[in-house]
Amino acid sequence: MDYRVLLSGFERDAAHRGLARSSQQHRLYACLRSAILDGKIEEGTRLLASRTLAEELGMARNSVLYAYERLATEGFVLSQRQGTVVARVRLERTEVRPSDEASELSRRVATIDPPPEGMNDLLPFLTGTPALDEFPLAQWRRCMDRAMRDLGPGQLGYMPVEGAEALRQAIAGYLRISRGVRCDASQVLITDGTQSGLDLCARTLADAGDTAWIENPGYNRARGSFLAADLKLVPIPVDADGLAPTATDWADRTPRLIYITPSHQYPLGSVMSLERRLSLLEQAHASGAWIIEDDYDSEFRHQGAPLSALQGLTDDARVIYLGTFSKVMFPALRIGFMVVPVALARSMRRSAAALLLRGRVAEQMALADFIDAGHFTRHLRRMRRLYAERRAVLQDALERHLSDVLTVSGGAGGLHLSARLDIDVADTVVSLAARKRGLVLRALSGFCLPGSDAAAHYNGFVLGYGAVQASEMEVHVRRLREVIDEVVRG
Amino acid sequence: MDYRVLLSGFERDAAHRGLARSSQQHRLYACLRSAILDGKIEEGTRLLASRTLAEELGMARNSVLYAYERLATEGFVLSQRQGTVVARVRLERTEVRPSDEASELSRRVATIDPPPEGMNDLLPFLTGTPALDEFPLAQWRRCMDRAMRDLGPGQLGYMPVEGAEALRQAIAGYLRISRGVRCDASQVLITDGTQSGLDLCARTLADAGDTAWIENPGYNRARGSFLAADLKLVPIPVDADGLAPTATDWADRTPRLIYITPSHQYPLGSVMSLERRLSLLEQAHASGAWIIEDDYDSEFRHQGAPLSALQGLTDDARVIYLGTFSKVMFPALRIGFMVVPVALARSMRRSAAALLLRGRVAEQMALADFIDAGHFTRHLRRMRRLYAERRAVLQDALERHLSDVLTVSGGAGGLHLSARLDIDVADTVVSLAARKRGLVLRALSGFCLPGSDAAAHYNGFVLGYGAVQASEMEVHVRRLREVIDEVVRG
Repeated sequence: MDYRVLLSGFERDAAHRGLARSSQQHRLYACLRSAILDGKIEEGTRLLASRTLAEELGMARNSVLYAYERLATEGFVLSQRQGTVVARVRLERTEVRPSDEASELSRRVATIDPPPEGMNDLLPFLTGTPALDEFPLAQWRRCMDRAMRDLGPGQLGYMPVEGAEALRQAIAGYLRISRGVRCDASQVLITDGTQSGLDLCARTLADAGDTAWIENPGYNRARGSFLAADLKLVPIPVDADGLAPTATDWADRTPRLIYITPSHQYPLGSVMSLERRLSLLEQAHASGAWIIEDDYDSEFRHQGAPLSALQGLTDDARVIYLGTFSKVMFPALRIGFMVVPVALARSMRRSAAALLLRGRVAEQMALADFIDAGHFTRHLRRMRRLYAERRAVLQDALERHLSDVLTVSGGAGGLHLSARLDIDVADTVVSLAARKRGLVLRALSGFCLPGSDAAAHYNGFVLGYGAVQASEMEVHVRRLREVIDEVVRG
Repeated sequence: MDYRVLLSGFERDAAHRGLARSSQQHRLYACLRSAILDGKIEEGTRLLASRTLAEELGMARNSVLYAYERLATEGFVLSQRQGTVVARVRLERTEVRPSDEASELSRRVATIDPPPEGMNDLLPFLTGTPALDEFPLAQWRRCMDRAMRDLGPGQLGYMPVEGAEALRQAIAGYLRISRGVRCDASQVLITDGTQSGLDLCARTLADAGDTAWIENPGYNRARGSFLAADLKLVPIPVDADGLAPTATDWADRTPRLIYITPSHQYPLGSVMSLERRLSLLEQAHASGAWIIEDDYDSEFRHQGAPLSALQGLTDDARVIYLGTFSKVMFPALRIGFMVVPVALARSMRRSAAALLLRGRVAEQMALADFIDAGHFTRHLRRMRRLYAERRAVLQDALERHLSDVLTVSGGAGGLHLSARLDIDVADTVVSLAARKRGLVLRALSGFCLPGSDAAAHYNGFVLGYGAVQASEMEVHVRRLREVIDEVVRG
């Protein structure tokens, strides 16, 4: 066994393996270990005495001792009276099966459509992204700074699963007044965002095979959470008054969970009528279903008076209310919340305690501070004006350049419009062509459950305007016109 | 309709409902809304003209107009030629079913044992908590401060699901050299901690009903994640050489997932032998199972040379390696990571992209900075000495005060010891009595799958020493002696 050859070969290797920065003694250990594993040094071989090997390799004897000790600790060599002997180390390699990576995915996850490639890039008309460059970062930095300075060892451990009391109080106060939600802080659970709330609801309130109603078209990530929890999805159509289930749906496809966006349907933008709201509450009550109200962007209402949440219509509403700071603050914050009915609060906390571990006290305290100091309300007020302007400018530009091919709807609130294509081209084709021209234009058909009637019925786009400056709207809309014309010309 | 009576009654109510801080116009709206919903103002009622009502209540007319407009927007009243008329608003209240909160929980979540009450309090012998008061908070604040200052609008949006490149590079470098993990940054996914990694694995790599092997006794939260994902748990015994499956287990209870803690079994503390490691890799390969290696506290090794991770034994190991910063940094950070095999990286990223949304760039950049600047390694080195000392002091105190009733094991690494009770008293009884005396002493039987053989076999405790000062160990151990004596006397 020529150790020098072994070692020099290994040194070349080590660079490739990203071990160049490790110590010499560590590299010697790793070299011997891999030679033993690969069978280059066979079972029963006696290694050179540490002093001899050190001399041969020109190393300190301690380095060799280190390597031998590690090998012995891990079971690769045995320290015997005759010296250091290689142990029986055999890794039988069975035939590597052909690499079919897709087959490694569970069936439940394989049924989830992957998020479309390149369609989450920060480009004009991306949905769900607020005006990041308008966020008062300096104020947020100061709140974070204060929270970090207040941080003591006591806040570094695991925290109560429901989140920081100060933040829950601030959220409950805001929701009561601004969203008409009936709640106090004991019903509020801080989450890592809406999807973590959906995951918790899907697993806690439903079993595999239970029926979940989803809006069709609707929010893909709600579908994803439910599929990953093995729920049976039932797509329910949406019209101008919101979710429109039939008596047959209630009787034959009785839901356990109902996912809705009543304040601003995602993606169509319709507002659920009072009649539908009341009927949904009644029927959910009668059939023991839970309504998940995702109030993702209702802070921004551009036409008419504010709209209250469905949750607040009655005290015993079977509603889990989901909110997020992703739109009003910024997505990277990853803080959302859920408001659960009083009767469910203990169960939900228990489930969360078993399934989630919590911390991030500084961020939560900074956010509570940001809200209590009034920065939140001020920012919200500024953004309401900004988004109303952006919407108006977009709607105007669409009217001037595209009214012959697009019918726009859903602009009463939020950060996006939806637009139906009135000509006979597929939205997916236009969407791909637009992406090549630097526009992210999600196809409306992509929000529908694959294979459902809706998928054939909806042909159009969702246009997010939250992150598009008003002064640039015109040029992007003109480009969209060009894209559509090119697609039509073929 | 006496609006003044209505309103004064509501004002009393509003204080209770946490609406006292809202504006007068908002309170008027909320009052009318609730009167309509409750039937106190009936369908078809014509509301007073805004000017008249304003005079009657001594309010500005604009306040009344605001209230009427909101009610109209939400559908509670109709603006007709004759004035503002109450719409048909009926919420039929079905019989409220008897409140059986537990029945609201899904069966899958109901099977998860709730975390024991009061056993997560920051008291002596709590497990899983590092020395929080030794964490270099000032340095961490500086890293966070720098990261916050570097934060621009571009970092406020959603981020790539795998996490920040700089942090993934730092982690891969650390793992290659310190843990013998074979990986580069492309295989690293940042998580919100170990349980979020477990959730992702359980849903992505297994379907409902698939078999998951768990160590028995073992980590309750791994059980929780698997149960919530509807996996079938098969408890596998653990001995001094780690997980000990039989040929029958492989043949008749072939696993899809295998959860192990080979470096320092949780809670017993044993180290998996090389022979077992190689055999597990071979068999997992042959049967298409995935090994989840949870390397939760292996940074701390008090006896002998460091131990490499199982993942690094071969290039094509079917291992998902989970790591966390909760022990080496602090739990509230909520940053962990997984290292997935090259062949699985795309699938896992795809699944994560559908199920998780990411952000928290500042924290990730601060952590990368903390590692790159060497703070991480320095802190680790200090903590290794500190924990080794705490362990030695605890072991010594246990030896002097409790050697007649306890047999200690598992002290080669980590932040906890396990101790077998050699007398005929139930660990749960001692645990409860100890909790009353301010000691958190998790019963060993509580780590076993309920109803399994192990639950009857293991009687003892897990003693976390990470957060207990060496100078106080003696007094806590003496107290434990008193508690045990009291329980024995009955």
